[in-house]
Amino acid sequence: MSETVRRGRRPGGEDTRAAIVEAARAEFATAGYVGASIRGIARRAGVDPRLVHHYFEGKSALFAEIMNAPVNPAQLVGRLVEGEPEELGERIVRTFLEVWDEPGRRAGLLALIRTGLDGSQEAPQLRDYITQDVVGRIVRAHPGAAALPVAERRLRAGLIATQMLGLAIGRYVLELPGLADAPAEVLVARLGPVLQRHLTP
Amino acid sequence: MSETVRRGRRPGGEDTRAAIVEAARAEFATAGYVGASIRGIARRAGVDPRLVHHYFEGKSALFAEIMNAPVNPAQLVGRLVEGEPEELGERIVRTFLEVWDEPGRRAGLLALIRTGLDGSQEAPQLRDYITQDVVGRIVRAHPGAAALPVAERRLRAGLIATQMLGLAIGRYVLELPGLADAPAEVLVARLGPVLQRHLTP
Repeated sequence: MSETVRRGRRPGGEDTRAAIVEAARAEFATAGYVGASIRGIARRAGVDPRLVHHYFEGKSALFAEIMNAPVNPAQLVGRLVEGEPEELGERIVRTFLEVWDEPGRRAGLLALIRTGLDGSQEAPQLRDYITQDVVGRIVRAHPGAAALPVAERRLRAGLIATQMLGLAIGRYVLELPGLADAPAEVLVARLGPVLQRHLTP
Repeated sequence: MSETVRRGRRPGGEDTRAAIVEAARAEFATAGYVGASIRGIARRAGVDPRLVHHYFEGKSALFAEIMNAPVNPAQLVGRLVEGEPEELGERIVRTFLEVWDEPGRRAGLLALIRTGLDGSQEAPQLRDYITQDVVGRIVRAHPGAAALPVAERRLRAGLIATQMLGLAIGRYVLELPGLADAPAEVLVARLGPVLQRHLTP
């Protein structure tokens, strides 16, 4: 590739990366998650858009970075939607629990939930990220749900989001008895069919 | 009834009531929600337990009062569990939305959720109140679920709690598209069967 890409591998690469992250922060704050673009971020950072792509897989990865998310949920979704559509509900719950049950990630994920709830400046961006690039992407990838009208898809995405959000809060924040100590596969068996029901028209 | 009860109706009644509320706050903080008792609250306030009952229907009503809850969910549960067990799931969602869709109560309910999530001193009390006197009571009142072993009842109560908590956060805090503007009866139709599934063995 071009000179710009090779620049990122020089000792100065960390500075460039940091400049892109700062530019992304400003772009998300100004344009919102939906309105932000890699092109706009590159323009703010004064670099070529290809250089942004050199460091970050895309907009969702940049957003996960500025939110200090320990994983990029949008990236997990890519793996999730491969496989049998009939078992997508169970895969969502299983993957979600694998990510959250890892203690090293817990604090970062909880911080993310608190950001979504505390009325901070980032809350609407976080909501749009989850709606569009996490749950929305799951619903669009399901062959049945993808064919539905937009309003119906949004409702279903909202129902799935509430279930997963409630699960995170009940199991990891409130640590509800019966839920905090339930084996992951028990929750997969109970909640997988609930999500499947929301996915399947 | 006795002299003590009549005392509550005197002009000094507001002071007595306030003393009971303060005593309850101390009792919940020291003994936790499960360990607190009307007898213990009365002892702290230096009054007869019957006087506590004169002002408050019971422990759950006192707790709702000190949490500034705009309604006492435990009281609503009493109404909920009357009626057909097969429609309990739908009634839960409908009643929940009736309470939350009323704008005058919204701020108080949101404050309650934030208390549960912010790691404050009251968070464990709130968790135990919801687990024992709100969702736990619903599960115990359902003829099918009531017969289950304790661990299984707790799991089911936890699953119901996560769904309702997620619904509150998704619809009223994050205001997710498709969910924030959905008519109540649409959500009753989508989520009623989910709760029924958790209730019915």
